[in-house]
Amino acid sequence: MKLLDGKLVADQIKSEIALEVKEQFLDRGIEPPHIAAVLVGEDPASMTYVSAKEKACHEVGFVSSVYRYPANITLEKLLEVIDFLNADDEIHGFIVQVPLPKHIDEQKIIERIDPKKDIDGFHPVNIGKMVLNLPCFLPATPFGIMTLLDRYQIDVDGKNCVVLGRSHTVGTPISILLSRKSKPGNATVTLCHSHTRNIREITSNADILIVAMGKEGYVTADMVKKDAVVVDVGIHRIPSAETKSGFRLKGDVKFDEVSGKCSYITPVPGGIGLMTIVSLLQNTLKAAKKEII
Amino acid sequence: MKLLDGKLVADQIKSEIALEVKEQFLDRGIEPPHIAAVLVGEDPASMTYVSAKEKACHEVGFVSSVYRYPANITLEKLLEVIDFLNADDEIHGFIVQVPLPKHIDEQKIIERIDPKKDIDGFHPVNIGKMVLNLPCFLPATPFGIMTLLDRYQIDVDGKNCVVLGRSHTVGTPISILLSRKSKPGNATVTLCHSHTRNIREITSNADILIVAMGKEGYVTADMVKKDAVVVDVGIHRIPSAETKSGFRLKGDVKFDEVSGKCSYITPVPGGIGLMTIVSLLQNTLKAAKKEII
Repeated sequence: MKLLDGKLVADQIKSEIALEVKEQFLDRGIEPPHIAAVLVGEDPASMTYVSAKEKACHEVGFVSSVYRYPANITLEKLLEVIDFLNADDEIHGFIVQVPLPKHIDEQKIIERIDPKKDIDGFHPVNIGKMVLNLPCFLPATPFGIMTLLDRYQIDVDGKNCVVLGRSHTVGTPISILLSRKSKPGNATVTLCHSHTRNIREITSNADILIVAMGKEGYVTADMVKKDAVVVDVGIHRIPSAETKSGFRLKGDVKFDEVSGKCSYITPVPGGIGLMTIVSLLQNTLKAAKKEII
Repeated sequence: MKLLDGKLVADQIKSEIALEVKEQFLDRGIEPPHIAAVLVGEDPASMTYVSAKEKACHEVGFVSSVYRYPANITLEKLLEVIDFLNADDEIHGFIVQVPLPKHIDEQKIIERIDPKKDIDGFHPVNIGKMVLNLPCFLPATPFGIMTLLDRYQIDVDGKNCVVLGRSHTVGTPISILLSRKSKPGNATVTLCHSHTRNIREITSNADILIVAMGKEGYVTADMVKKDAVVVDVGIHRIPSAETKSGFRLKGDVKFDEVSGKCSYITPVPGGIGLMTIVSLLQNTLKAAKKEII
């Protein structure tokens, strides 16, 4: 078994981006890529995530701004913020951290973002272009999975690939990306979800298994084909007396038993989570270079 | 075996639309739905298809216009035509018949269409909204398949569904629609294509088999599970001395042998082809009622 090491690849890509920022931007007197995040309210997970993004930006030499608003901001005011960020030439791309407070229609906010600055890849135009295999911003987690498979030269073409979970941010887009005529891609993809009846039978035939169910320890060794490639997108905080923080991070896959049976596996932590933030940096770089129009 | 009778269902839906046009539009003094088609050049298949659309429009009481241009029209001029149709309040929806001449960038034309008038459902915004399960114009053929399955109350939920072919107009969108959280939907979908290795093994496990390969007679009885539901999207003109026209229409499925083994099957002709045009009428009605914004 080999690890699909998200930390290793994320660090590699960050070095590559940092070099590109230096050579293509700073050394030429061009302003570096600038990413903004809109943070509404004080959800601890959102605040942690936005901080991690800021840290990653600083590591590669991007400019990073955070626009903070109270949880009682109105929809109209938040739409004005989006319009301002769309119009500001200094900001190359931005994200609106979800979840938003319940009184804000998330979809209205997402659709107001200029698709050219939509580095989260959540705007319907970017999702549609992804389906059509046109240049676009890919959603960060699926993009991260594709990058990790690509860097480890995992052969996806013609393989039976099973995706567990059909969320709009992970399962559905990764199933589309893997089956597209592209590299990596050209896999035969089966998308499973809560209504799937014979899930064990299906996973047992998977050459590549992508797990994004959101159920801690769901995938056990008996569900996995020998020498399969296993990608675990789940991330769960499990209380633990053995760690200083008081918790331990676990995935959707029972790593201890599955890792002995498969050829490659992503660890949790140190797998897809780190690739997600790097994807956002890659999208911002594309935005700054005006590669997506 | 029962037929999934596209003609029967198409006629039913056309009667329903005709009644709605009378009651909701004409009787209230409102202009009926108006559909326009842009036809470039003199491709015989395109001319036949546009005529069939005009005929269907007249049957239900829609207004129908055709804008004809020579094959040497410039991209700029064609974009102006799109802008004109986008702006014309009397036209509720329009299609640009493909294929376009080689010097015209089809994607540029499609992306210029106002998504609110994109009754073909080919604009990236509509495709993205389809993925996200938001109100949108569905592409006509997949929409027709879903309608046919729905009218025959075929139970799709939790079933193993296999789609052969990953085209942007049929295979890919129907695979997305069938796996969505919707009714019909919630199927476990496997999308197969030219790179799929074990295609017979996969089709043999399909409760529902959608065939959109574009290969005449590709699916044989030994590839189909007993009592499966088989939907044949293929349409091929086969020379024949026995018909007045000199040809016979055949699908991607060997109907004679497969029909004895399955529970339901679409005939060719008389199946999905007729449902496609009806889907376009349904989309136009939605456009006229401003249901998709």
